[in-house]
Amino acid sequence: MELLKKRIQSDGLVLNDSLLKVDSFLNQQIDPDLMLKIGEEFAHRFQGEQITKILTIESSGIAVSVMAGLVLKIPVVFARKKKSVTITEDVYYTKVYSFTKQESNDIIVSKQFLQKDDHVLIIDDFLANGEAAAGLAEIVHQANAKVTGIGIVIEKSFQPGAKKLMDAGYRVESLARIASFSNGQVIFL
Amino acid sequence: MELLKKRIQSDGLVLNDSLLKVDSFLNQQIDPDLMLKIGEEFAHRFQGEQITKILTIESSGIAVSVMAGLVLKIPVVFARKKKSVTITEDVYYTKVYSFTKQESNDIIVSKQFLQKDDHVLIIDDFLANGEAAAGLAEIVHQANAKVTGIGIVIEKSFQPGAKKLMDAGYRVESLARIASFSNGQVIFL
Repeated sequence: MELLKKRIQSDGLVLNDSLLKVDSFLNQQIDPDLMLKIGEEFAHRFQGEQITKILTIESSGIAVSVMAGLVLKIPVVFARKKKSVTITEDVYYTKVYSFTKQESNDIIVSKQFLQKDDHVLIIDDFLANGEAAAGLAEIVHQANAKVTGIGIVIEKSFQPGAKKLMDAGYRVESLARIASFSNGQVIFL
Repeated sequence: MELLKKRIQSDGLVLNDSLLKVDSFLNQQIDPDLMLKIGEEFAHRFQGEQITKILTIESSGIAVSVMAGLVLKIPVVFARKKKSVTITEDVYYTKVYSFTKQESNDIIVSKQFLQKDDHVLIIDDFLANGEAAAGLAEIVHQANAKVTGIGIVIEKSFQPGAKKLMDAGYRVESLARIASFSNGQVIFL
């Protein structure tokens, strides 16, 4: 997606060999018009698929997901992160490790929002090691629902997440695929 | 906003005398089309005002805010919640107490995303005791920016938040104002 790549190159901040900060349009400040265009692109890439629900994770996945949901005319469900789940709750949950934050969180979704006849598009902002997306897929499986595909805004292709998810049989559509960061510059695949 | 009130009455779950659960369209599952209509209503209510930015708080404020930002053609900034702020970060922050969760969080916004010439519309999903909205207003003041108004999706008018904010001089626009919960029913003002 050219518009997104241009925005990453103009406004993204390469912090080191593996970290890119896009706080100015995606992760703390949000550009709503860019979010809509990203939502339209996800809808375009998955056209022809039967999708009944989008599943994402708080917080940075919500803005793009709600725009994709607007275009596809389907509801969005977001998983919540919690330090630990009290088992009394009627929820699907699994543990997700964040390499960036070096911490584990339980991610949870109320059982009432995923049904076994759901066809789910998983959306997230970044794909690096694939922990969050794999956790969301695990929750879809707990609900006996189907993962139609995984839509990613920015894929760091030099990290193992995309390959792991594709090896597991998922269709992964990433709108910007980064080969490397070189001298503070973003090199796309 | 009639559409919203009808949705609260059909899909909201009154848990007790003060708690309303709207997880099925706002707080965990999100109805994107309703979010757009809420965004349009906020834009309508504040039309004629010069607004340069929307400020909200993760996670449930993001979906409505990004739709309001889409309609108003302005960026959205969301405050992050953290257990504690490391003072090395270049952020505005303040403490907010949640009566629902009975815990305090620091809420933080990077200094680069609020300027002194910003005219800020604060948006949040619920208004009860007004702690979150007052915290967001405090952050706007730290940036020497101006609070143009406060837009709330659901106001629990029997709790003190709305009065406190209006007494402090803020314009508060709530799209659904709840007088009470009576026998599991929602009574609007």
